[in-house]
Amino acid sequence: MRGLDEHRAAARALGAPLPAVEVDLLDAQGLVLAADVVTDSALPRWDNSAMDGYAVRAADVAAARPDEPVALRVVADLAAGSSATPQVLPGTAARIMTGAPLPPGADAVVPVELTGAGAASHADDVCARDEPAPAWADDAPVLVRQAVAPGAHVRRAGEDAAAGDVVLRAGTLTGSAVVGAAASLGRATLVVHRRPRIAVVATGDELVPPGTPLRHGQIPDSNSWLLAAAVSDAGADVLRLGPTSDDPVALRLLLAALDAGEHGQVDGIVTSGGVSVGAYDVVKAALADEPGVEFVRVAVQPGKPQGLGRLPGGTPVWTLPGNPVSVAASFEVFVRPALLRMRGLTDVERPRVRAVAAGAWRTPPGRAQVMPARRAAPSALAEPAAHAGPAALSALTGLAASYDPRVPVQPASARGSGSHLVARLAAAHGFAIIPADVDEVRVGDTLEVFWT
Amino acid sequence: MRGLDEHRAAARALGAPLPAVEVDLLDAQGLVLAADVVTDSALPRWDNSAMDGYAVRAADVAAARPDEPVALRVVADLAAGSSATPQVLPGTAARIMTGAPLPPGADAVVPVELTGAGAASHADDVCARDEPAPAWADDAPVLVRQAVAPGAHVRRAGEDAAAGDVVLRAGTLTGSAVVGAAASLGRATLVVHRRPRIAVVATGDELVPPGTPLRHGQIPDSNSWLLAAAVSDAGADVLRLGPTSDDPVALRLLLAALDAGEHGQVDGIVTSGGVSVGAYDVVKAALADEPGVEFVRVAVQPGKPQGLGRLPGGTPVWTLPGNPVSVAASFEVFVRPALLRMRGLTDVERPRVRAVAAGAWRTPPGRAQVMPARRAAPSALAEPAAHAGPAALSALTGLAASYDPRVPVQPASARGSGSHLVARLAAAHGFAIIPADVDEVRVGDTLEVFWT
Repeated sequence: MRGLDEHRAAARALGAPLPAVEVDLLDAQGLVLAADVVTDSALPRWDNSAMDGYAVRAADVAAARPDEPVALRVVADLAAGSSATPQVLPGTAARIMTGAPLPPGADAVVPVELTGAGAASHADDVCARDEPAPAWADDAPVLVRQAVAPGAHVRRAGEDAAAGDVVLRAGTLTGSAVVGAAASLGRATLVVHRRPRIAVVATGDELVPPGTPLRHGQIPDSNSWLLAAAVSDAGADVLRLGPTSDDPVALRLLLAALDAGEHGQVDGIVTSGGVSVGAYDVVKAALADEPGVEFVRVAVQPGKPQGLGRLPGGTPVWTLPGNPVSVAASFEVFVRPALLRMRGLTDVERPRVRAVAAGAWRTPPGRAQVMPARRAAPSALAEPAAHAGPAALSALTGLAASYDPRVPVQPASARGSGSHLVARLAAAHGFAIIPADVDEVRVGDTLEVFWT
Repeated sequence: MRGLDEHRAAARALGAPLPAVEVDLLDAQGLVLAADVVTDSALPRWDNSAMDGYAVRAADVAAARPDEPVALRVVADLAAGSSATPQVLPGTAARIMTGAPLPPGADAVVPVELTGAGAASHADDVCARDEPAPAWADDAPVLVRQAVAPGAHVRRAGEDAAAGDVVLRAGTLTGSAVVGAAASLGRATLVVHRRPRIAVVATGDELVPPGTPLRHGQIPDSNSWLLAAAVSDAGADVLRLGPTSDDPVALRLLLAALDAGEHGQVDGIVTSGGVSVGAYDVVKAALADEPGVEFVRVAVQPGKPQGLGRLPGGTPVWTLPGNPVSVAASFEVFVRPALLRMRGLTDVERPRVRAVAAGAWRTPPGRAQVMPARRAAPSALAEPAAHAGPAALSALTGLAASYDPRVPVQPASARGSGSHLVARLAAAHGFAIIPADVDEVRVGDTLEVFWT
């Protein structure tokens, strides 16, 4: 039998970053930058005000004190977006809003809170009930009641990025902050790795679409739905096909059509069922003559019978077993990392954390186990976990602040790892990975877990 | 000033679970079940085979040994999906595939690997190159070479769930395993809380769409893009509007139209900009007469000026400040939890973890800080973190297995927390929350962090 990690590596290697495409900003969300993004201009583009207030010459207000204000003539009114460039000469100031360009001559900003105008303010109508009314005034001189240092409350051009800087690196996942930064650079599009489109094929003559009345022996197809959702969750588009019949010729033709692009772009195919030693194992039969596809037994439970490879047209194929829990576990450890690689990610494995077994079970000798696992209540452990965080850190209220990495976990089903326990699978929060050389898990054992 | 947690609670409380709707299975993905899902039938629906092999009467093969096989006449051939119900009488067996109903009379399954047929096998053409050929045969008797206990390799009806069991609980987030379980129950639809649709309005006369040539004083709108992506990331649909002008009358009309449903269903409105003490603070001006909306200063940096409430039609509104880092931080701590509540989730806060400061900075006295933070290289800490996991657990190769909860972090920008540093924000992995009573972070301090 092939080792779990060997097969994981082979399965993952079938995914390679897809070609770059240029897409609109929001269409890039969840995709990965395929090229560095360089800024053409400094950010900020010009010195600008960090506050609502008055642009001044700092030397003019060096002697200002609350009870001995300095009066400056207001020569301009600079909203953010103003294209005016009034000169601020000695003895003058320009009213300025946050973000507006600092006018020539000015070298500091006095926040409006540190000023008091000589005339009545018009600010009342724009200020909320619990705000102190700031000292805005038209025409009247502004009274500055505190000195400011040169550069005070000024955002310097280029302090976020200089022209020519790489602001966003190839390989970065496009999240909201990346979208925001790209927009700030004036980019309406981003160059990203194309989103994979993955065909999902569930096989089995016993399967009928959910909602269809069942004859004796029939069951609803769940694998094509589970896989479609899992593919989507992995950030790929999905073409769901199935259930298909157990006719190897028909399946061979379907796979060839997918490989030839007859169903649109298909970057990979995931099948379920038909890879074991049964007489009706349709996937094995359909692909038996494909030199690029191998069927192997992997030292893992569930999910021992596996196949993978490439069809003649180069399309990767992963053939998973047919039991729902096997499908879910196999997708997680074999297919998902490859799909993330297609998207251009390099960190494609779920982070694993330590957990503590809150139940005991036996595991198959010589095979690793990928056990659907559920976070248990802390009381499921006889003793409190060792690394509980200091209570002082939980002072902020209303938080789900769990500092304890030693989460108690138990199998999702009290029935253990039965690969048909699809209802219990839905109660799992993730999977525990038990190495092949462990035959038994005892309460309190440290486990390696990943959450899904 | 209002405390951070008080405002967080008020902002979160504006989100309430949206009404239930029935949607197709895959459309339910990412939404939250609004009703328990009960199974009408037992799962599995009938006793069925866990293996490819032969359904037998265990008593018939009690004496079987590898060198003294028991021969049984094969009376039927049961593929999964077969509706046949052949009687397995003493001395007979039925060939059976995984998942096929156990035929009447049989009480155990002998895996094909434990049999050897008397005649030539036809299995070669369906088996892969590295598989042992199983002993399938037509017509010939099957030779059983090992005894099996009653019940062996039989999946009992109802062992996953009994008829009437609640299989999926209201409040469960619909992931791939939930989709799979629902399909297994024969459900083609699920009842979920409706997905929120959130309007995003960026204000500011200085803003132009990204890609538009800039006059002096203009900058590209980034907030409406950042917020649209953040809303989408929070699982809601988005109606992106903006940038809008600084005319309070026009903005008042736009908000009233959104509240009245003139732009389709709108479950909430997020604005950026125009809530400070400036003379052009358009959002404050537009909403000054709304009794259901309040503007407050919150003891947090960035993001001090905030507003929230409900418009006359009941639409929640969150008015965030205009600097991009303030927008991102305010969305995270004030808006996102409310959107998750609308989706029907109850665990709406990002999990917080401990981290170690790899940099030092001062924080504003009397205000909490929501600092864009970046995971630093481990070498950024002088000493190794205390809780490094046992190396033995990292034995599985190829894993990003980090057991150390004490991640070193540093501010996303060496310039600190400037709320205009949008390019640096894109380098953040999350935010560190520094309590209001902390004025200074030193290297090695324990921090509370959440990843985004």
